[in-house]
Amino acid sequence: MIETCFTALREKAPLIHNITNYVTVNDVANILLSCGASPIMSDEPEDVCDITSICSGLNINIGTLNKRSIEAMFLAGHRANELKHTVLLDPVGAGASRLRTETAFKLTEEIRFDVIRGNISEIKTLSSGSGTTKGVDADVADAVTEENLDRMIRFAESFAEKNHCIAAITGAIDLIADSKKCYVIRNGRPEMQKITGTGCQLSGMMTAFVSANPDRKLEAAATAAIVMGLAGEIGFANLQKGEGNSSYRNRIIDAVSNMDVSELKKGAKYEIR
Amino acid sequence: MIETCFTALREKAPLIHNITNYVTVNDVANILLSCGASPIMSDEPEDVCDITSICSGLNINIGTLNKRSIEAMFLAGHRANELKHTVLLDPVGAGASRLRTETAFKLTEEIRFDVIRGNISEIKTLSSGSGTTKGVDADVADAVTEENLDRMIRFAESFAEKNHCIAAITGAIDLIADSKKCYVIRNGRPEMQKITGTGCQLSGMMTAFVSANPDRKLEAAATAAIVMGLAGEIGFANLQKGEGNSSYRNRIIDAVSNMDVSELKKGAKYEIR
Amino acid sequence: MIETCFTALREKAPLIHNITNYVTVNDVANILLSCGASPIMSDEPEDVCDITSICSGLNINIGTLNKRSIEAMFLAGHRANELKHTVLLDPVGAGASRLRTETAFKLTEEIRFDVIRGNISEIKTLSSGSGTTKGVDADVADAVTEENLDRMIRFAESFAEKNHCIAAITGAIDLIADSKKCYVIRNGRPEMQKITGTGCQLSGMMTAFVSANPDRKLEAAATAAIVMGLAGEIGFANLQKGEGNSSYRNRIIDAVSNMDVSELKKGAKYEIR
Repeated sequence: MIETCFTALREKAPLIHNITNYVTVNDVANILLSCGASPIMSDEPEDVCDITSICSGLNINIGTLNKRSIEAMFLAGHRANELKHTVLLDPVGAGASRLRTETAFKLTEEIRFDVIRGNISEIKTLSSGSGTTKGVDADVADAVTEENLDRMIRFAESFAEKNHCIAAITGAIDLIADSKKCYVIRNGRPEMQKITGTGCQLSGMMTAFVSANPDRKLEAAATAAIVMGLAGEIGFANLQKGEGNSSYRNRIIDAVSNMDVSELKKGAKYEIR
Repeated sequence: MIETCFTALREKAPLIHNITNYVTVNDVANILLSCGASPIMSDEPEDVCDITSICSGLNINIGTLNKRSIEAMFLAGHRANELKHTVLLDPVGAGASRLRTETAFKLTEEIRFDVIRGNISEIKTLSSGSGTTKGVDADVADAVTEENLDRMIRFAESFAEKNHCIAAITGAIDLIADSKKCYVIRNGRPEMQKITGTGCQLSGMMTAFVSANPDRKLEAAATAAIVMGLAGEIGFANLQKGEGNSSYRNRIIDAVSNMDVSELKKGAKYEIR
Repeated sequence: MIETCFTALREKAPLIHNITNYVTVNDVANILLSCGASPIMSDEPEDVCDITSICSGLNINIGTLNKRSIEAMFLAGHRANELKHTVLLDPVGAGASRLRTETAFKLTEEIRFDVIRGNISEIKTLSSGSGTTKGVDADVADAVTEENLDRMIRFAESFAEKNHCIAAITGAIDLIADSKKCYVIRNGRPEMQKITGTGCQLSGMMTAFVSANPDRKLEAAATAAIVMGLAGEIGFANLQKGEGNSSYRNRIIDAVSNMDVSELKKGAKYEIR
């Protein structure tokens, strides 16, 4: 199934509208091109409805939000909903400030999201206001571990059910769940936390994978997480002497652009629960 | 002639003011430094007239435009015109939204551009409103090919004549034309489309080349396109095992920074029509 | 002492709030992660007080400033002062435009900065309005050299005294001074000027080093400059055949992420005056 999702994305090459932060936007654009999609960025309220109309997916990321971009998120989100496009929310820093938390809540109330993808602290914040956030990184105390896995899977499924969406909680272990089924993914490397934007990049790719696979959205979202994690492993293995964080960032995107079905199949580490 | 243009840029090291999108802005800055120019970015209406006054060229790129930056484009454009600086327009996404199309049109009406550089769909949109745009990428149906080359050269020359500017239509084949003469450039690699921002980078460099060569603007604009395409070839040849899109982006900029006159002369593939 | 400063940063992993330009923001985020800190970016006035409250340092960089981000700089600066956080000013382009010069002055009047870090032209502008700026680069005529070193050290110390801050004047020779003592640092490579953002990156890292070393702020600021310069040397030595500016940028950040105490100790080139 993940191979089907992967192939469909490369064949359909969906155009994805990103309202995303200016920190990692270039990496988001490059990883979208690398996985087979096309990116377009626009955050001006007068521009976003036209732009999202010619796309098939919308990726809303609230990092470096401002009043203008918040207005654009709601306008684009409503239009994308009308057109039944794939819409994903990445609630960067929800829990870290009132504006981010409230914007994320209001977005989930007004816009219908196919996927909400964040770290565990952000998702906990959206679930109950109880998450703690260390800036834009997850609090260690919140982490999904082998020990609390059963409980966290139930949490993911219940979050998905309440929010009528796919819950994508990513970290050392990724949980990609709808109300009934959860992909538990063990690809990735801890070193990915030391480069900025792997989460933002995954949100962009996940929007693209789901857009290209409207009949198997959960599997598509899981495939995106597997591709990202596996690229993190391949990129790490490809690091040369003297290379560090910045080269690692490049090598992860490189690995996505070079990935093929057989590599994906061989490298995927997941179970369905 | 292209060698003269290349050498003049390295000698004069012009300061270029860029009002450009936040997706590829870092690459634009780095490629400007790599080709021998200096970049400065500013898009605040209260700041841009001062900034453009100390520069010798202005690069206006409408990707991720917003109301504030649109105002800045007009203010900076008028000032740059008064000071007889080189001014270039990159109409990113013209045809993809009403705001982008109208802004591009209004800019061409009010500001005198030395060069308008875009993909064929953007230039067709500016020419007649008839271009179709797939987001920020050219529509395949519009492409310049060996088959329609004569017709497209005439189109480029007529666009240049109507707009009193150099028309720079870039793609698999680049056409850099004024009303009477057209450089047909066959440098480059198809893989350049798979990384974000090669067009934006070229716009930055082209502004710098033309700024440094006021007496041979057409040749300077063509030289910029040759340098970019050739860097795409060299960067591709330098890719190592395991490298992909993101490393390719870096290696293109690397190739610009390492290029010398003899490499340029040997690698340039163009004819004048 | 520099080893202590270096180790403290890695141990404390401070969260640093950056209000910085969109040109080099991604590199700032990656170098902060590489040196052991965590970055968060926010420039919306309604968001910045919450964000800065959960951080331990604030890095204000006025490149690509706009009215919204200027408002955010003052709000965040006041809050950070109330909370006794480390606050650094990077007056990018002060001297190049009235808005930048005035904003930099007003910030120094209203906000208490632990460090002001800029090139010599920017610092001269802040000192007396007499600096000349070539865009965002220092004017060669202003440069700190072995010949004018004694005079420049006195200038740095007097600037520090007048502004009740650490003066960090960086260039071929870096001067990191308080009113009584000056670190003269000779790490670095001239090629660092050919990549965008090494100054912005240093400002981010310096905020982190000082945040993590509240009892030895001058030494911490100097350590940041040594780490950056040394990373420039190591990154340059690691360049492979065919690599240029863009790879150099990556290899500098790589060198920061790979640096350890013994490499720092061995490579540091400084004297205290």
